[in-house]
Amino acid sequence: MKNEIKKVVLAYSGGLDTSIILKWLQDEYKCEVITFTADIGQGEELEPARQKALALGIKEENIFIKDLKDEFVKDYVFPMFRANALYEGEYLLGTSIARPLIAKTQAQIAIQTKADAVSHGATGKGNDQVRFELGYLAFNPNLKIIAPWREWDLNSREKLLAYAQKHGIDISKKKGKSPYSMDANLLHISYEGLVLEDPACFPEDDMWRWTKNPKEAPNESEIIELEFQKGDLIAINEKKLSPAKLLIQLNQLGAKHGIGRLDMVENRYVGMKSRGCYETPGGTILLKAHRTIESITLDREAAHLKDELMPKYANLIYNGYWFSPERLMLQALIDESQKYVNGKVSIELYKGNVIIRGRESANDSLFNTAYCTFEEDEVYNQKDAAGFIKLNALRFIIAGKNGRKF
Amino acid sequence: MKNEIKKVVLAYSGGLDTSIILKWLQDEYKCEVITFTADIGQGEELEPARQKALALGIKEENIFIKDLKDEFVKDYVFPMFRANALYEGEYLLGTSIARPLIAKTQAQIAIQTKADAVSHGATGKGNDQVRFELGYLAFNPNLKIIAPWREWDLNSREKLLAYAQKHGIDISKKKGKSPYSMDANLLHISYEGLVLEDPACFPEDDMWRWTKNPKEAPNESEIIELEFQKGDLIAINEKKLSPAKLLIQLNQLGAKHGIGRLDMVENRYVGMKSRGCYETPGGTILLKAHRTIESITLDREAAHLKDELMPKYANLIYNGYWFSPERLMLQALIDESQKYVNGKVSIELYKGNVIIRGRESANDSLFNTAYCTFEEDEVYNQKDAAGFIKLNALRFIIAGKNGRKF
Amino acid sequence: MKNEIKKVVLAYSGGLDTSIILKWLQDEYKCEVITFTADIGQGEELEPARQKALALGIKEENIFIKDLKDEFVKDYVFPMFRANALYEGEYLLGTSIARPLIAKTQAQIAIQTKADAVSHGATGKGNDQVRFELGYLAFNPNLKIIAPWREWDLNSREKLLAYAQKHGIDISKKKGKSPYSMDANLLHISYEGLVLEDPACFPEDDMWRWTKNPKEAPNESEIIELEFQKGDLIAINEKKLSPAKLLIQLNQLGAKHGIGRLDMVENRYVGMKSRGCYETPGGTILLKAHRTIESITLDREAAHLKDELMPKYANLIYNGYWFSPERLMLQALIDESQKYVNGKVSIELYKGNVIIRGRESANDSLFNTAYCTFEEDEVYNQKDAAGFIKLNALRFIIAGKNGRKF
Amino acid sequence: MKNEIKKVVLAYSGGLDTSIILKWLQDEYKCEVITFTADIGQGEELEPARQKALALGIKEENIFIKDLKDEFVKDYVFPMFRANALYEGEYLLGTSIARPLIAKTQAQIAIQTKADAVSHGATGKGNDQVRFELGYLAFNPNLKIIAPWREWDLNSREKLLAYAQKHGIDISKKKGKSPYSMDANLLHISYEGLVLEDPACFPEDDMWRWTKNPKEAPNESEIIELEFQKGDLIAINEKKLSPAKLLIQLNQLGAKHGIGRLDMVENRYVGMKSRGCYETPGGTILLKAHRTIESITLDREAAHLKDELMPKYANLIYNGYWFSPERLMLQALIDESQKYVNGKVSIELYKGNVIIRGRESANDSLFNTAYCTFEEDEVYNQKDAAGFIKLNALRFIIAGKNGRKF
Repeated sequence: MKNEIKKVVLAYSGGLDTSIILKWLQDEYKCEVITFTADIGQGEELEPARQKALALGIKEENIFIKDLKDEFVKDYVFPMFRANALYEGEYLLGTSIARPLIAKTQAQIAIQTKADAVSHGATGKGNDQVRFELGYLAFNPNLKIIAPWREWDLNSREKLLAYAQKHGIDISKKKGKSPYSMDANLLHISYEGLVLEDPACFPEDDMWRWTKNPKEAPNESEIIELEFQKGDLIAINEKKLSPAKLLIQLNQLGAKHGIGRLDMVENRYVGMKSRGCYETPGGTILLKAHRTIESITLDREAAHLKDELMPKYANLIYNGYWFSPERLMLQALIDESQKYVNGKVSIELYKGNVIIRGRESANDSLFNTAYCTFEEDEVYNQKDAAGFIKLNALRFIIAGKNGRKF
Repeated sequence: MKNEIKKVVLAYSGGLDTSIILKWLQDEYKCEVITFTADIGQGEELEPARQKALALGIKEENIFIKDLKDEFVKDYVFPMFRANALYEGEYLLGTSIARPLIAKTQAQIAIQTKADAVSHGATGKGNDQVRFELGYLAFNPNLKIIAPWREWDLNSREKLLAYAQKHGIDISKKKGKSPYSMDANLLHISYEGLVLEDPACFPEDDMWRWTKNPKEAPNESEIIELEFQKGDLIAINEKKLSPAKLLIQLNQLGAKHGIGRLDMVENRYVGMKSRGCYETPGGTILLKAHRTIESITLDREAAHLKDELMPKYANLIYNGYWFSPERLMLQALIDESQKYVNGKVSIELYKGNVIIRGRESANDSLFNTAYCTFEEDEVYNQKDAAGFIKLNALRFIIAGKNGRKF
Repeated sequence: MKNEIKKVVLAYSGGLDTSIILKWLQDEYKCEVITFTADIGQGEELEPARQKALALGIKEENIFIKDLKDEFVKDYVFPMFRANALYEGEYLLGTSIARPLIAKTQAQIAIQTKADAVSHGATGKGNDQVRFELGYLAFNPNLKIIAPWREWDLNSREKLLAYAQKHGIDISKKKGKSPYSMDANLLHISYEGLVLEDPACFPEDDMWRWTKNPKEAPNESEIIELEFQKGDLIAINEKKLSPAKLLIQLNQLGAKHGIGRLDMVENRYVGMKSRGCYETPGGTILLKAHRTIESITLDREAAHLKDELMPKYANLIYNGYWFSPERLMLQALIDESQKYVNGKVSIELYKGNVIIRGRESANDSLFNTAYCTFEEDEVYNQKDAAGFIKLNALRFIIAGKNGRKF
Repeated sequence: MKNEIKKVVLAYSGGLDTSIILKWLQDEYKCEVITFTADIGQGEELEPARQKALALGIKEENIFIKDLKDEFVKDYVFPMFRANALYEGEYLLGTSIARPLIAKTQAQIAIQTKADAVSHGATGKGNDQVRFELGYLAFNPNLKIIAPWREWDLNSREKLLAYAQKHGIDISKKKGKSPYSMDANLLHISYEGLVLEDPACFPEDDMWRWTKNPKEAPNESEIIELEFQKGDLIAINEKKLSPAKLLIQLNQLGAKHGIGRLDMVENRYVGMKSRGCYETPGGTILLKAHRTIESITLDREAAHLKDELMPKYANLIYNGYWFSPERLMLQALIDESQKYVNGKVSIELYKGNVIIRGRESANDSLFNTAYCTFEEDEVYNQKDAAGFIKLNALRFIIAGKNGRKF
């Protein structure tokens, strides 16, 4: 394959690893390298990535830097939150949901620049390689894929550093850079490695870069109001903002109040278990708020059908199948359910707690006190319950008369 | 039906409502009444119930008071927690899981005393009537059921009080008694009614009778260790106790640290939405801990299958189908998964937060650092990932070559 | 309720039972009766229904007769067949799918005529009462419903006939009329009652009114070609016809060749088991053909997701929930899957057998011989399978090294 | 790897392909080869396999020939039929269900003979390689696996024949041997290749080796009676036989009457579609009979739960996950449902048709005519249906009053 490739688009962060990959691609594949750096809210400046790419000999016109923050929140994060998606009951899928967008944009740049290959810096043991590559191939089945971590022999930190030094790549550690393996975007930060590799161990507090420790969060709670339209957040405290700006603000609120830390062992798609720590301050609030607004506006069976299908939907995202017929089918089902999910939720934030204070929907509330109090009402006749129970019990009555025991 | 009934077993709490029912049954049905009072950890003394029953003319031998606490936790709460059951994503099913045990015991007393009917004090708009009656009929399809709230015309608080006074039933309010409609047992306390009938309103803090407000919980966190065997809790801080005692201790810990409050609008089985507040201090810790010990001991697909079936299982319990073929089938599936769910979880409790500090399993951990770090290992060859991805992507490649877009 | 009702729309077939109901409504409710007779292909002339209604004193303008055949097939039968729906693995839902359309149209006539109630002739033990009434209420929650079979005391054949004779309703049996309880429409005929009430007994052959006995079907087989577009049948033997006409023709073909008889015991929604015989000649061919065209055009995971959700979808239709948020959600998912389900299926019909002879899709086939033969191809590298298997087996390898046995 | 392997157990049929593999293993791996030949009812004598192995230099003590027919039917086929398993709505999984048993036995022989590797003759594009290898690894995670088709360069029929001739392996075609790629066992025969590679083409009739063409089946039908106990077939026409003998007899009956042919395009686990023809004469009768006996003995919700989970269960078997925690969990659920599935089914076989004539269960029938006829009975009060419908409709009524349309 090595001789066939003329041009490759690399998902380039500007960091040490992808800089080494950049150099390695030039050397091993003797091909033109195009760098693609996406801003999905990881909180780093992107101009240094441009400078580093130039320094490594990339032509100005081959450097692509894109701000994908709004697309990320509007077309990826929000649709996913309509489903109340959690992987294995806990993980808010912060990394998983960003990969398809990067892969899609990278594949589009490949088409635009007539590149014949794409490359990424994900390792051979993780989920991200799958998410990237399924995304590439869903967009362009003819793309060749170079996954250096699965190919090269730089399979230890020492070899990597040696390679970098040999090729004049700056290996000085950024001041304050985390020693953990991190992934960050507008929705979350994840941490892996080091002490986390022992699931019995608890990480030191300065691992967390975003959220306050609940113990150090303000003693005063804060009450906010979130407004939803068709299942999507549209305003915080009555202020309408773009999707990305809403999530940024929600992140600030959550981080301040110590909300959204998660420490879990999860099952990777490639077959092993791994430990990860995640902080998802805004997302944690958003999930709770979305469930709450659904609680008064969504039909019971619609809600239950969503709940039954949610684990499958979350698996698809975790495993990298965002661009797939089955995800689109599930999304059609979910979106169909959201048209009346309109209203406001009042929430109190306090030292890691997300406390619901109230929920209301001007036009779409299905809650009506009259129906559930024990006094008579026009819609519900208590005597009807006898027939309801009797017919639901009929199969037990028949079975019981037949001698069956449960 | 009224003339046919000779003997009825009443689920009798000793409170005002079931005392009125007791009298009403005697008057309307002219039948012998047997009272059954269960101790499922509701935290009230049961002897007063005996005295009240005697005062209402019940014969000594017709008064049944049973301590069901151990059976409740061992055979109902723990099996349910093996499933990580949550109704509508949030509710830990504290009331739902207690009803079948009461119904079963009541039906057994009916058989033992040759009673031809059973009666309960649940209203005609709630879920409990269904849970009780499905339970009765699953055990004895020939039992007649008297549900006074669906029959009589005492359909307002005023009429009830008038009836009580007329028949010499004590209507003086117990000092400190909650004005809310409550249900309590070893797993939880629930609250309904009053201000909760407006879902936009937040209840005053003294509604909560069990858990500390997180704001008033200790400033010092507390670390505990829970040990599991085959998915069930067997020890706290290395001390083995009976199931009921374990849950009692876990409740104390949770309550002290402000853990387990929930305020939600839920969908009742009988068709309307209702607002409930719940406090489940021990259960909230238990759920998190159980998921955590599963995270290192349970196979991925076993875990995912459980997650996909959990909403259905939770619905069954919520709707009153504990004694049903389908619940037994799901339980068989769940129990089959738990044989390796052994190990310990370290947890920090702090102002409403349940923070996982570590998890370990001496013999049954499937977590192995070697498999997930990026260095080579004997079990996992990174190059295998290329084939894995390629074959999983094959259907996209074929579809893409056919011109399909996702 | 009896005095409140001024005008009622009756689902009127013109037969004896609904004629008695018509009279009974006039007498008991002293209200104006509007008759609604739908042509959904039951194969009876509808003009006699008009004459009978007039004879029973219904005003000309209160008689509604509607041809719903095209709407029935296009908006009900075809969407359902996109899902390959079968209730309890066998039943093609012929009666179930017709009821919502009748209920909807009847509710619309009630709105149009300012009627305050609707009435139907379904018994109190069957599924149809549920299907009608859920349909009415989904369209107009304020409608009152009169279900005479649950109200009156004409609870035996003798009493009914006596009532009819007393009120001058013709009780002479139509020559050749089946002694079975039948329901017929463009999709099927069903039979209940008589010898069928013993599930160990086999009905005599002249019970079946539509399909040939396979033993008497032609000795010569017949080959037909069905063409699909977006999952719907659009042509038979290259001839494009309206949905209703396509189904009529397919019925003729199926009936001639002894196709589509089914004899089963099913579980009714109201709690008991019942025996039914069904003949669905065209539908039986259509289901097989639709699965076949999907087999070459539908993505694997899309197909599997449909299969997993099909039983729930079929239950919804069987139980009367066609007009429900959950059915609409599932329909959105199913319809999303059908956009590439285009192509032709060749089928041989022979004495009860539906034999697939071939399938092709000009533009949307995902089948490619090159991919599945054992010789090399450009898309599939056999060595990739090793990695695919290895990673899928990883959890077994890890578990096995840990000492677990399966 | 080549030098590390000392002893390999080969799944050896005695045919040309596995004979070539045998020789190739000896040459390439320079290791001792143990042959394992299983009798799972493929209908070939196994002694020739022994002779061929001896001729290829295999030591007498290294030749294992095992009759697995009873184990196959009792522990694999029957448990699977309890689930009514069909892959993609049609395929009875005849090949899929045999592979795990072969893999398990082969892995056991490897342990017994201290072999360090196993080998099979499945190609790199099919499902069987996955089924074999997942089975091996579930039993012994340390086994090395040699899959010659993925390794060698004999990737065309010509090269294979040349290799055979060069090494003195008999390449003369057995008289009457099918030109199709076949797999046969007690449950089915499958066909692939040749004209089947064009899904628009119909195979010539002499491809089918087992079942009569329905057109040539007897003009006289035949009525048989099948008896079930706990969901398993135990007798045909009142004669109790071993599981294997029952299936053999059912196959004879089905084959004679032209029952069980299937021609389909299916989705392989490795990602592509493939065309297969299957004949499953006994299995086709058995599936229909099992559903029928369930129809009168199984609770409704138990049946529906099984139906909803069946596609997942069938996928697991098709994909090779028989030995997996998730299959065992589903099996526990299914087996729990079968304890009352006892009784007899009368079936008429006629030219490809399996016609149910009756079903009965002496002690476990839940069918009772009294419950479904329209006359009054003691168990069912028709008026109860009104309450049942009203409460089930409540969410529509509330939504409708809120202005929602469905």
